[in-house]
Amino acid sequence: MTESPAELGLPAVVPSDGLPPSVTIYEVGARDGLQNEQGLVDVQDKAEFVTRLLDAGAPIVEATSFVHPKWVPQLADAAELMGILTERLGDAARRLPVLVPNERGLDRALDLGLEHVAIFGSATETFAQRNLNRSYDEQFAMFEPVVERARDNRMTVRAYVSMCFGDPWEGRVPIDQVVTAGKRLLDLGADQLSLGDTIGVATPGHVTALLTALEDAGIGADRLALHFHDTYGQALANTYAGLQAGVTTYDASAGGLGGCPYAKSATGNLGTEDLVWMLTGLGIEHGIDLGRLVGTSVWMAGRLGRPSPSAVVRALGTPA
Amino acid sequence: MTESPAELGLPAVVPSDGLPPSVTIYEVGARDGLQNEQGLVDVQDKAEFVTRLLDAGAPIVEATSFVHPKWVPQLADAAELMGILTERLGDAARRLPVLVPNERGLDRALDLGLEHVAIFGSATETFAQRNLNRSYDEQFAMFEPVVERARDNRMTVRAYVSMCFGDPWEGRVPIDQVVTAGKRLLDLGADQLSLGDTIGVATPGHVTALLTALEDAGIGADRLALHFHDTYGQALANTYAGLQAGVTTYDASAGGLGGCPYAKSATGNLGTEDLVWMLTGLGIEHGIDLGRLVGTSVWMAGRLGRPSPSAVVRALGTPA
Repeated sequence: MTESPAELGLPAVVPSDGLPPSVTIYEVGARDGLQNEQGLVDVQDKAEFVTRLLDAGAPIVEATSFVHPKWVPQLADAAELMGILTERLGDAARRLPVLVPNERGLDRALDLGLEHVAIFGSATETFAQRNLNRSYDEQFAMFEPVVERARDNRMTVRAYVSMCFGDPWEGRVPIDQVVTAGKRLLDLGADQLSLGDTIGVATPGHVTALLTALEDAGIGADRLALHFHDTYGQALANTYAGLQAGVTTYDASAGGLGGCPYAKSATGNLGTEDLVWMLTGLGIEHGIDLGRLVGTSVWMAGRLGRPSPSAVVRALGTPA
Repeated sequence: MTESPAELGLPAVVPSDGLPPSVTIYEVGARDGLQNEQGLVDVQDKAEFVTRLLDAGAPIVEATSFVHPKWVPQLADAAELMGILTERLGDAARRLPVLVPNERGLDRALDLGLEHVAIFGSATETFAQRNLNRSYDEQFAMFEPVVERARDNRMTVRAYVSMCFGDPWEGRVPIDQVVTAGKRLLDLGADQLSLGDTIGVATPGHVTALLTALEDAGIGADRLALHFHDTYGQALANTYAGLQAGVTTYDASAGGLGGCPYAKSATGNLGTEDLVWMLTGLGIEHGIDLGRLVGTSVWMAGRLGRPSPSAVVRALGTPA
């Protein structure tokens, strides 16, 4: 390849009318990304990863999940990781959100004095049964004491809603079913919904339609985050539709780490770098230093022994 | 990976307001894709590729380029390919567009009785010099007799405008410079402009701004095509901005074949399958059978000995 003198490391900034002036990137690589890695990642590397993400300017980094190791052995080191992060970051470690699947997970978060937790719900019956071992209805009963106790302890609670667009067993997911699930989670006391396209099948019109239906149900963009997977290459187009609807929080995974173990594809979460490229070009504030983030993902790709699926990392990153 | 019973081969159809009801996909894989392959592809495989693309429903398939073999040895078989395609397709082969870089190329197209040609211009001085061996101004003098004689012979002429957003040597390309280049090509008699983001740096606001400036200069969406590269993962978001501005012709390359030899990244053209997925989800007519197209790209990936960069092909395609 010819190297050229003006090779661009950033896009030209050309804003578009009607988009938010700034967004919050909710970094999920350390939890959602690494929990789907086949091999085990060293806990010291995980701590280094979280620290580097923060140093690159990531405003929110979900650190891990207090899930039972039987279900997700990749995250069996959650307590150890939080210990290392507390040594490295001090009080700031308490502000890193963690996923708590149930009351036992919440107890562990409370013991550590954490300030932000996330629960993981499903918009569909089949995925609730397979992922939560509960029926769709039973999941809300399981979450109720978690949210209540978290809020009693002044924690904020994010509620993931998975399978918001398609479900691998059920096919297309009706929009009103997602609205109902979201409403029930907010009624329990959740502060924010993260609407997940867990298998990556959404397209922009579907995103707009869901956000419109939520707005009509009294759930405004300010209480929403969007969590796209790039399985079919649609994540950024869907993000653009989300920006046009006023959503200001986007989940993304550094280097595009992770994926859904129930979907066929090797590709997973929207890569944070690809999101940063688009936001930068649109003149939307995000606070992340793209060069440092790419460096972090290149380093992690080296630790994992495989190239990053993020287009921006592949284009800008030197081989690890 | 768990196989699931309702694994989706197509997205849910959810239209979005204000988008065109149908678009034309201009398939560039056989020319723009294969001209950037390092190794030589057998001419029989190229003919098979073009035929399969047509069978999958591609409405326009650019077959090859009548460029001097010294510059693009990958396409030295252009005349032989057109001969095989004429044997296979009969008169339909004459309706396949070919790129003609200059009058010598046009002579070859005229000899074969072809009906559609394309020329390849540059929006920037540096790329004109490096790719055309002409100054920016001199390119128009070179194209003038090509377009005039083509039109005298009742051919349609498409004019590619490369480097419309960024140039690897010059950085950001001013919008008025692109408008001027486009206007000069249309004034010569070109029927359609294909606006190329040759190095993939565009973001959606930049696309909207360029299309607005062209409209203001009297060049409406009906005379435009958009040609995005996915180097930084932005091609589909940019396409969505193009749809919102009313553009109805999009260049794409089956399986994401190709790329720009002057850009750093391994990724190139927007994959046709990824585009088809989005259009299908948006309920926009395109005429392509996604399953057959994926099958074609999987077959070609096998011939080339490397996996397709298209996300949809990776997700849906069985290994070649």
